[in-house]
Amino acid sequence: MKIFNKIAIVGVGLMGGSLGLAIKDKGLSAEVLGISRKRKTLRLAKEKKAIDRGFRELSVLKDVDLVILATPVETIIDLAKKISKIISKDCLVTDVGSTKEKVVSYLDKLFPNYIGSHPLAGSEKRGIRFADKDIFKGSLCILTPTKNTSFKALTKIKRFWQMLGVKVVLLSPQFHDKVLSFISHLPHILAFSLINTTPKRFLDFAASGFKDTTRIASSDREIWQDIFLSNRRCILKAIDLFQQNLSKIKSAIKTRDKEFLNKFINQAKRKREQLK
Amino acid sequence: MKIFNKIAIVGVGLMGGSLGLAIKDKGLSAEVLGISRKRKTLRLAKEKKAIDRGFRELSVLKDVDLVILATPVETIIDLAKKISKIISKDCLVTDVGSTKEKVVSYLDKLFPNYIGSHPLAGSEKRGIRFADKDIFKGSLCILTPTKNTSFKALTKIKRFWQMLGVKVVLLSPQFHDKVLSFISHLPHILAFSLINTTPKRFLDFAASGFKDTTRIASSDREIWQDIFLSNRRCILKAIDLFQQNLSKIKSAIKTRDKEFLNKFINQAKRKREQLK
Repeated sequence: MKIFNKIAIVGVGLMGGSLGLAIKDKGLSAEVLGISRKRKTLRLAKEKKAIDRGFRELSVLKDVDLVILATPVETIIDLAKKISKIISKDCLVTDVGSTKEKVVSYLDKLFPNYIGSHPLAGSEKRGIRFADKDIFKGSLCILTPTKNTSFKALTKIKRFWQMLGVKVVLLSPQFHDKVLSFISHLPHILAFSLINTTPKRFLDFAASGFKDTTRIASSDREIWQDIFLSNRRCILKAIDLFQQNLSKIKSAIKTRDKEFLNKFINQAKRKREQLK
Repeated sequence: MKIFNKIAIVGVGLMGGSLGLAIKDKGLSAEVLGISRKRKTLRLAKEKKAIDRGFRELSVLKDVDLVILATPVETIIDLAKKISKIISKDCLVTDVGSTKEKVVSYLDKLFPNYIGSHPLAGSEKRGIRFADKDIFKGSLCILTPTKNTSFKALTKIKRFWQMLGVKVVLLSPQFHDKVLSFISHLPHILAFSLINTTPKRFLDFAASGFKDTTRIASSDREIWQDIFLSNRRCILKAIDLFQQNLSKIKSAIKTRDKEFLNKFINQAKRKREQLK
């Protein structure tokens, strides 16, 4: 069902491209524009039918109804001011950045009809060639309203995500960043560190446990550098807590403390089994 | 093809039961006996046709050709002496324990025809009800010969694994334990610690990255306590190295050291992409 006339997606990578495909699949917009610096990306996005038309200039944003910023976090902030001078007063704006406090506090002031989004979908892959309309199926999208969020932005963008088949949850940008520091950022740091700790010649012996634990270690450098730096404070706290737990199990192994090991493994097992 | 008359599997859980199914599927033995303390396990194993007959006493081992010890590591050591007094001089013996130095140094002296095995197959599940003949397909089995290993044990047990469709690699027990401390034991410690670090109420937001990284955290308590204590020295060293890497990325985030973050993430990504 059509709820927009013209949606523009700025940054047509895995996430932007998948959004284009999903929007077109559900018929949510009469037209989907894609904006990218790279001609090749725009060509591929058009071939995949993730966008109807591709542009390298932001000026085409002047008459769109909804702008979705789908670049790495630092680039969202770099582009926002320029975009705010081009779009109409009524235009809705959202972003799909993986950290919210920094982005939302900046965009909130620039755009009268803005709300931050974070669809918890995607993969370790990057680029339009991995775009897939189905990545949103059954997933969660966190919206991060603030006291400045307009009713229109909240209701219309919430509806937009719901029509893509996504369950919407509202969290403050601060709480979002805290949750994500444990659920996503810390696991990435551990995966990067684990694989960098493992001697290369041992990798031939990796079975499914190692592979699953390190899958996200092949994630994109630019995206993750931005996430680490834009959510520094929360991430440092999560690492602190993790280090305390790691020290505890290490010292239990050192002192052969079976009681602690039992408790620690059982607690982990019980918590993990709650997840589907 | 039949290469044994009577194989006995001591411990009919996920691994022992899967072995029984695979042996019977390939017709490697005229008969497969299962030994367990629990009547229920033996009943389920027979229902699944993972064993032909089940016993609660070790005395039935007196005329078997091959004994496979498939219990947690500490139990293997507990049972070995009794078994050595029952089996015939020609009987082949192997175990499928996840750490080798401690087990092999003990069993090597007790049995004239012993070699340690470690099939890198299985899952975080435990128990006969998860037994599956296909877990060995395309997997690796590490055999750990020593200067005491008989030629007969090495060749015949190597052939046994190969006939189950497994690729066999020979490593010393010491080197096996070092490799596994990085490839399997450290990832389990991180998964247990990660989930114990994550506040329970945040688990609702877990997406595929968190789930994959922590899948092995629902592994069995008894098995893993034994592994941690029987491979203490190697595991403590692996944790040390991991802690150093974690401290490095933490301090790079703290000081906003983009150059280090870039290098660290890129190195991880390149190494991870070598794995299939």
